[in-house]
Amino acid sequence: LPPSAIKSGYKVHQLSFEQRLPLIRNKVGRRLLEIVLKKQSNLIVAADVTTSQELLSIADEVGPQICVLKTHADIIQDWTDSVSEQLVHLAKLHHFLIFEDRKFADIGNTVELQLTGGIFHIAHWADIVNAHIIAGPGTIEALSRSAEHCGVLLLAQMSSKGSLTVPEYTQKALEMAKQYEDAVFGFISLGCIGEPNFLYFTPGVHLQERGDSLGQQYTDPETVIAVQGSDMAIVGRGIIQSSDRRKAASTYRKACWDAYLQRLGDDK
Amino acid sequence: LPPSAIKSGYKVHQLSFEQRLPLIRNKVGRRLLEIVLKKQSNLIVAADVTTSQELLSIADEVGPQICVLKTHADIIQDWTDSVSEQLVHLAKLHHFLIFEDRKFADIGNTVELQLTGGIFHIAHWADIVNAHIIAGPGTIEALSRSAEHCGVLLLAQMSSKGSLTVPEYTQKALEMAKQYEDAVFGFISLGCIGEPNFLYFTPGVHLQERGDSLGQQYTDPETVIAVQGSDMAIVGRGIIQSSDRRKAASTYRKACWDAYLQRLGDDK
Repeated sequence: LPPSAIKSGYKVHQLSFEQRLPLIRNKVGRRLLEIVLKKQSNLIVAADVTTSQELLSIADEVGPQICVLKTHADIIQDWTDSVSEQLVHLAKLHHFLIFEDRKFADIGNTVELQLTGGIFHIAHWADIVNAHIIAGPGTIEALSRSAEHCGVLLLAQMSSKGSLTVPEYTQKALEMAKQYEDAVFGFISLGCIGEPNFLYFTPGVHLQERGDSLGQQYTDPETVIAVQGSDMAIVGRGIIQSSDRRKAASTYRKACWDAYLQRLGDDK
Repeated sequence: LPPSAIKSGYKVHQLSFEQRLPLIRNKVGRRLLEIVLKKQSNLIVAADVTTSQELLSIADEVGPQICVLKTHADIIQDWTDSVSEQLVHLAKLHHFLIFEDRKFADIGNTVELQLTGGIFHIAHWADIVNAHIIAGPGTIEALSRSAEHCGVLLLAQMSSKGSLTVPEYTQKALEMAKQYEDAVFGFISLGCIGEPNFLYFTPGVHLQERGDSLGQQYTDPETVIAVQGSDMAIVGRGIIQSSDRRKAASTYRKACWDAYLQRLGDDK
């Protein structure tokens, strides 16, 4: 292992996704690993766009290269039920899961309504949702009760500048995940921070850029996956703002998969 | 002061709302205090209902008694632009402000789109929004840039069981508020945790109940306002689930205002 990995405090597992699949308790987590293995893709695209047309175009363009499409339904200016129906159709066509990046962060009673109700009724179409743990276990309890067909990720670390996800906070996220392991199958984190029976998702992945003016900070796939031990790379602007999204997605898919093989020691 | 207030570590200011009005930098915060003084109401109703008809009925029924109506647009199953238009109309009619309890908790770039865009375009109709500080200052920077006509509250403490808003976290919220004082005029907290140039809003206020099955914990108005030094009491189920909401709102308004007078030493 590179010294930076040891110094960073990340746990870099060398178990393959095949070996970890039976360790994952949540069924959406296992389904995700089946897709990852079949498509040789641990690439997630963050479709941070504001119209349904763009969202659906991206889903169709990058669909064949990704394991998960990450959405923000509440930034789409013309969202209707038809958008989620078309998304689900594209997800089936191209074999990817839909991850609504809602970052639930309220008390249980409210989160339950936000997940199942409103205009979005996220639980009907999202395979994966995520939550902050700041409000306490009630948030996760509500998601695990209401999200029968959803897997949950906990935000344990964030990539933004000045984030307050200190080590004690990250530790609490790990404890809460163990407590709700039927629902929670992984974390949003900067690398691998726990055991191989959870999956680790890292946002802010970019092959060139270093940051934006609102505190986002980028890291490249090799650092995130091979050095810091994360499993899934979430790429936004690196693909979305490319003039050729299909090609960019293909480049990123290969870079992220190669970084995974490098971590296993399988790279030539 | 009761010993519990001193022991609790809350700062119980004895400045009146009149005296604090010129200390508030954000103009929505000052407008709120004008309403509070005019209506002798520091009562906020949390309209946690799932249809626009119920939401608008509540706004109309409790409107005369409240300084602020707290909404969750994303749990309303039939939300349209017309709902926010009617809400704004009722807010003008009954002189209250609208507080969308969105709990923004993402990186700046996303928060900006969530505030101004999507189906809700919250910034068009909400006077007050709130944010978690967990993602770092980028969240607040984005809100302060985009929310010209909004005041911002930071979540410094939560009333739910097992909440991770430890003292160091609360301290960070205070520091961030000072850094963005043009936009931030107060906190969601369990009592008064800082200086009198900010306002303190406490959820989970109830005259009888103690909690729910998803970790919500209740406190009565006197404890929250007179003992813990909070300014604004947020009441949900105590009013919403009452068979006579007008009467319940009137009872709560008086209880909360009396608790404020008691804190000032103005009660007989």
